[in-house]
Amino acid sequence: MSGRLTSRDIRSESRLVVVRSLLAAGESTRGELAEATGLSLGTVSTIVQDLLKHGIVAETGLLSTGIGRPTTGLRLNADRGRVVGVYVEDRYLEATVFDAALGELATVEATSDESVAEADEVIDWIVRTLDTVLERAQAKREDVFGIGILLPGGMQRPVKAATTPDAIWLHLDRLRDTLGLPVVVDNPLKAIATAELWLGAGRRVANVVAVSLGFGVGAGIIQNGAVVRGATNAAGEWGHSLLVFDGRRCQCERKGCVEAYVGIPGIRRTLAEIAPGHPLAEGVDLVAAPAEGPEGFDLVAALADAAKDGDRAAVATIERSAHYLGAALADIVAILNPEVIALKGWAGWPVWRERVAPIVRRRVLDDSPGDAAADLAIELSPTCGMEGIAAIALERFMRDLGLVTTRVIPAL
Amino acid sequence: MSGRLTSRDIRSESRLVVVRSLLAAGESTRGELAEATGLSLGTVSTIVQDLLKHGIVAETGLLSTGIGRPTTGLRLNADRGRVVGVYVEDRYLEATVFDAALGELATVEATSDESVAEADEVIDWIVRTLDTVLERAQAKREDVFGIGILLPGGMQRPVKAATTPDAIWLHLDRLRDTLGLPVVVDNPLKAIATAELWLGAGRRVANVVAVSLGFGVGAGIIQNGAVVRGATNAAGEWGHSLLVFDGRRCQCERKGCVEAYVGIPGIRRTLAEIAPGHPLAEGVDLVAAPAEGPEGFDLVAALADAAKDGDRAAVATIERSAHYLGAALADIVAILNPEVIALKGWAGWPVWRERVAPIVRRRVLDDSPGDAAADLAIELSPTCGMEGIAAIALERFMRDLGLVTTRVIPAL
Repeated sequence: MSGRLTSRDIRSESRLVVVRSLLAAGESTRGELAEATGLSLGTVSTIVQDLLKHGIVAETGLLSTGIGRPTTGLRLNADRGRVVGVYVEDRYLEATVFDAALGELATVEATSDESVAEADEVIDWIVRTLDTVLERAQAKREDVFGIGILLPGGMQRPVKAATTPDAIWLHLDRLRDTLGLPVVVDNPLKAIATAELWLGAGRRVANVVAVSLGFGVGAGIIQNGAVVRGATNAAGEWGHSLLVFDGRRCQCERKGCVEAYVGIPGIRRTLAEIAPGHPLAEGVDLVAAPAEGPEGFDLVAALADAAKDGDRAAVATIERSAHYLGAALADIVAILNPEVIALKGWAGWPVWRERVAPIVRRRVLDDSPGDAAADLAIELSPTCGMEGIAAIALERFMRDLGLVTTRVIPAL
Repeated sequence: MSGRLTSRDIRSESRLVVVRSLLAAGESTRGELAEATGLSLGTVSTIVQDLLKHGIVAETGLLSTGIGRPTTGLRLNADRGRVVGVYVEDRYLEATVFDAALGELATVEATSDESVAEADEVIDWIVRTLDTVLERAQAKREDVFGIGILLPGGMQRPVKAATTPDAIWLHLDRLRDTLGLPVVVDNPLKAIATAELWLGAGRRVANVVAVSLGFGVGAGIIQNGAVVRGATNAAGEWGHSLLVFDGRRCQCERKGCVEAYVGIPGIRRTLAEIAPGHPLAEGVDLVAAPAEGPEGFDLVAALADAAKDGDRAAVATIERSAHYLGAALADIVAILNPEVIALKGWAGWPVWRERVAPIVRRRVLDDSPGDAAADLAIELSPTCGMEGIAAIALERFMRDLGLVTTRVIPAL
């Protein structure tokens, strides 16, 4: 199907625009919403009526706007229910409870000494952790109108990664049956794009790329004010685009991927190339793909500390990583020409503001064609993937209420 | 402004969808259009009424659809007027006249021995060529409702290229005054994307990347059924994304761009690397950026002939170029996850079907993450940029008639 817009899609999109606008404002009036969204006052009033009817929006009493008589204030109805975001790896699970206005209520992290990859185990682990986090949020299962699970990959199968319990993809129906709750599974890159659209730079501009920098790296893309998902929900795998032709072996088994240079194991490998005997580079195999390992943000922290203490190899590693990142971001700018690049993960580390930011900015400006980077803002993202998957679950809930068409939610 | 959709935008988008659907069908009925677009019969009838009123659509008499009573046939009204596409370089100018149903009527090519870069000269050249091509199409200036000019670059300034008469950007108002006709200028990548949306793979699927392969290279991107333009209309500069970190010097003066490998001068440079003394590689400077020069499709033809005659260096060059292209396309697949990649330019050469296609396909499949390339079609594009700029000028005309909102036409 090509990009057909029916009038139902239009209503659906307008409702989402009003909900997002209300979330951004906190409290607002129909008139302010009309001004903020560009919709007519009549359209906004109709939409608000629908949203009030389904309890998504609540009235807050009379607001004085300074001019004319007071009008009724509106906000998202936080007490409409609870939504839970879940992030799961084979030894790590995190669950966060939000209210229906995406306010965070409680988070639980769980780790396992052994790999949890069998369907039964994964499902059981999720159910137990969910009960714990709900208790902490003083919520009951019946309050939950949606559970969103973050899982890498497209619609059919995940990106090859050692940390993915594929079992969820294969046994999603069982998970739904076990929980007796609506479950939506989506790709973390779509979640960070959605978070950026609802809560970040997507509030101000129409074209944003949110860049995740951790063990793995990827991009959440917003174009024309909408999340870019692609044919099979697999868009945004910038981490597996090419930085160096026939370059380093990536954990995805291809060569020269961006991730092999700016993912955390890649940074450690850069250190090993610069200073082969460096204590922080111990055990790095310069030939093989990076093994799974304890190469989390503690490496970023240790490198930052070493750089502060005058360790020249650490400084050189940070700066070379900044050059790699800048070059890889320039590719995004060349292809997508966004107003804003919103960086996440290790870019938020203190060392970033000192050493990485200026190099990245210069490299992006130098490497981007034409005027593509002229007015580009490179900033730190204020959002997280958990907020995004919660927003996706809220969209799904609105769909189940008949307020939103399926068209906007291709996630499972 | 974030992605606000007003009801006016919706009507506008629906009208364009109906026009495109009618163009695809040739002749159609209201009922068939409703089926093809997913719009309600009522909406289609209202839209058709508006389009009939403004002469964009004409009735063709009664059509028998086989069931029930005959209904009125509809088609785009080719005689509504003429639209002209213009492509201009500093020594080459091409102008094509289309009818209002985008049927090609006449083309004129003009060359100049000397560089034509001064505003006066460029404008004069365009005006003379326009009169010639209109005469050949048996049309008058007053028949012309739009002129579309293809020019590289974003909204503020062009991509740095030796072949761009920047004068047009700087003196667009003078050109409009001189011609006394509506002139729209847009980037060739937006034109090939628009052509693909109106006349190519964009009719079948929502996410397409049209890849232009000539002296320069670039991508026209369709996502969610809409042309991706980016913040400053500069999206799609895939040719200036990175293929080889710190690699070959590109004519844009950066290093390692895709264009430096799969643009025609890049192919010639690959030949010079493989066989330094090869007659077809004469004069290639392996250090400097490629000079402007006679490196057009004649090189592609000569290499194809040489390969046919068993020239191993020519075969190796073609195959290595295919590897470069495949790797660079895999980046597009990783980031954008399209259903279709539509190739243009040298990919359409006979040698392509023999040697390049299988290597590119294998490399894209091998290099794309997850399932992003699983159902990907790589095909030859049936459209050209001239059709695209004519379609953009037609959109602009519909805007001037009040049928389409400005939102969809950020082009100048």
